[in-house]
Amino acid sequence: MTSTSSQSTPSTTPHFGLIGLGKMGANMVRRLAKQGIHVAVFDQDAEVTSALAAEVNAVACTSLPHMVSQLAAPRVLWVMLPSGEVTESTLGQLQDLAAPGDTLVDGANSNYKDSVRRATQAEERGFHYMDAGVSGGVHGLANGYCLMVGGSPEALQAVQPYLEVLAPAANTGWLHAGPAGAGHFTKMIHNGIEYGMMAALAEGLSLLKAKKDFDIDLADVTELWRHGSVVRSWLLDLTAQTLKADQSLDHIKAHVPDSGEGRWTANESIELGVPTPVMTLALMSRFASQGADDYASKLLAKMRQGFGGHAVGTV
Amino acid sequence: MTSTSSQSTPSTTPHFGLIGLGKMGANMVRRLAKQGIHVAVFDQDAEVTSALAAEVNAVACTSLPHMVSQLAAPRVLWVMLPSGEVTESTLGQLQDLAAPGDTLVDGANSNYKDSVRRATQAEERGFHYMDAGVSGGVHGLANGYCLMVGGSPEALQAVQPYLEVLAPAANTGWLHAGPAGAGHFTKMIHNGIEYGMMAALAEGLSLLKAKKDFDIDLADVTELWRHGSVVRSWLLDLTAQTLKADQSLDHIKAHVPDSGEGRWTANESIELGVPTPVMTLALMSRFASQGADDYASKLLAKMRQGFGGHAVGTV
Repeated sequence: MTSTSSQSTPSTTPHFGLIGLGKMGANMVRRLAKQGIHVAVFDQDAEVTSALAAEVNAVACTSLPHMVSQLAAPRVLWVMLPSGEVTESTLGQLQDLAAPGDTLVDGANSNYKDSVRRATQAEERGFHYMDAGVSGGVHGLANGYCLMVGGSPEALQAVQPYLEVLAPAANTGWLHAGPAGAGHFTKMIHNGIEYGMMAALAEGLSLLKAKKDFDIDLADVTELWRHGSVVRSWLLDLTAQTLKADQSLDHIKAHVPDSGEGRWTANESIELGVPTPVMTLALMSRFASQGADDYASKLLAKMRQGFGGHAVGTV
Repeated sequence: MTSTSSQSTPSTTPHFGLIGLGKMGANMVRRLAKQGIHVAVFDQDAEVTSALAAEVNAVACTSLPHMVSQLAAPRVLWVMLPSGEVTESTLGQLQDLAAPGDTLVDGANSNYKDSVRRATQAEERGFHYMDAGVSGGVHGLANGYCLMVGGSPEALQAVQPYLEVLAPAANTGWLHAGPAGAGHFTKMIHNGIEYGMMAALAEGLSLLKAKKDFDIDLADVTELWRHGSVVRSWLLDLTAQTLKADQSLDHIKAHVPDSGEGRWTANESIELGVPTPVMTLALMSRFASQGADDYASKLLAKMRQGFGGHAVGTV
């Protein structure tokens, strides 16, 4: 194909549009383009849109209405925005613009309950709806994404050709987990597990670091464990890379943010009455790292003073 | 080589003897033999000893004194027995039989404090001493073992040729972690991390199983996660195999044993004053699965009855 100003009227009219060209969205577009799939793209930052469109010969769209007008029906409109309000409003706007029979895909880390509700609403208006949990981070472009999707058979039929290209292989790395909501539910659990596995690795390595008697090299140990050990894993691979570059971590703030899915997993545990102590504690440890245990610590210090006269520091 | 009754006087006199031919020990002998290393073997079960010796053309020994007499100095005596008393007494006996300059290796999952003490005692008597944490389970024969060793440079020099063959490759999969004790300390932490990672996977999948609305296939999900997800790991590979065979787990007792290293990791956390809440809770969850929380549960039920008149079941 030629890269000319005729990009908005390409030889084949695309069916697939991707909204939100952040790291994930842009690389997904690149992966689709590498497989020769012609797509339309839109980001609220017009420069981002035109740069990516030029790079991969996609149709650059200047607005949601423009995107819908540039796609041939039946359309697949894949929204790759942060979960929450922006995803909610974008999916709403698209339903005012697109035609019944089109398929909406939410690729954000949305709460599965929102996905169930949105799917019901969209289907009432004649759309197909899919919730897609996407894992793989910045490595997805090269290796393929791990996709957990939920939705009707009709939604699946419309989106499957794209899933097969986004995944590591056509038959590997994507799963129709069940009806609407099942994709984001599965992704939520995946991230909850991730919290626990990360915490176990971090705690163990911090204990190794604290054992001054042995002065064990953490980069060597993690590199070792990558080969033949029981804890070998992709998270360990990444940890070994980090520690190889710098194992002092002197300049890293001891603060771990959390995103929605860790909390939702803990909530789900409570709703179902199924214990997930390790996953939940991994979340609580992140809260503590954020300083949210400071008040409790102050109060405990005061209690010790109260009953035992122990000294209390002030700031 | 011929497999005749002259096995006890082979053409080359081995330097390496392995004591304890359980699953781990026997497969380690097989891996050494495959690389053409001639060894002597001893198990308290004479039939086990002779069968393995015949299989790999090793020198079959009928006792510890016999083994020492069949090896050429400097000897490497690798003890692959359960940690605790039997390892302690075997290492003691070997010091009464072997010669100064020989090297003793403890390949059990011993407490690192025992290893520090034993190394000191052995070195006072002129021996070299190595503590070797060995990971890899029953897959080690094919893939190589992950070996974490501690000890003096002299001990390392004596044992390194064998480590290079037991590991996946000469330069990969074994690590001299530090002085005596550092090998078993590193292995202890490895197993503590393993507890936490296993618990995270098991809890997450149990939540997925409990979500009846979606009826998600756990075998499909775990197989999916193996490809491109953040939680991909060897433990996930094994879990996917298990769930593919049977995801009901109806006939599996909900009881998780624990071995020493999970407890020692928790103890170390307390001694160092470094929090490992996730790893420690994974251990506590195993205790609960063993029924060790039953008394607390009974008492809580009685407390609810006491203040609220709530019904209490009896058995």
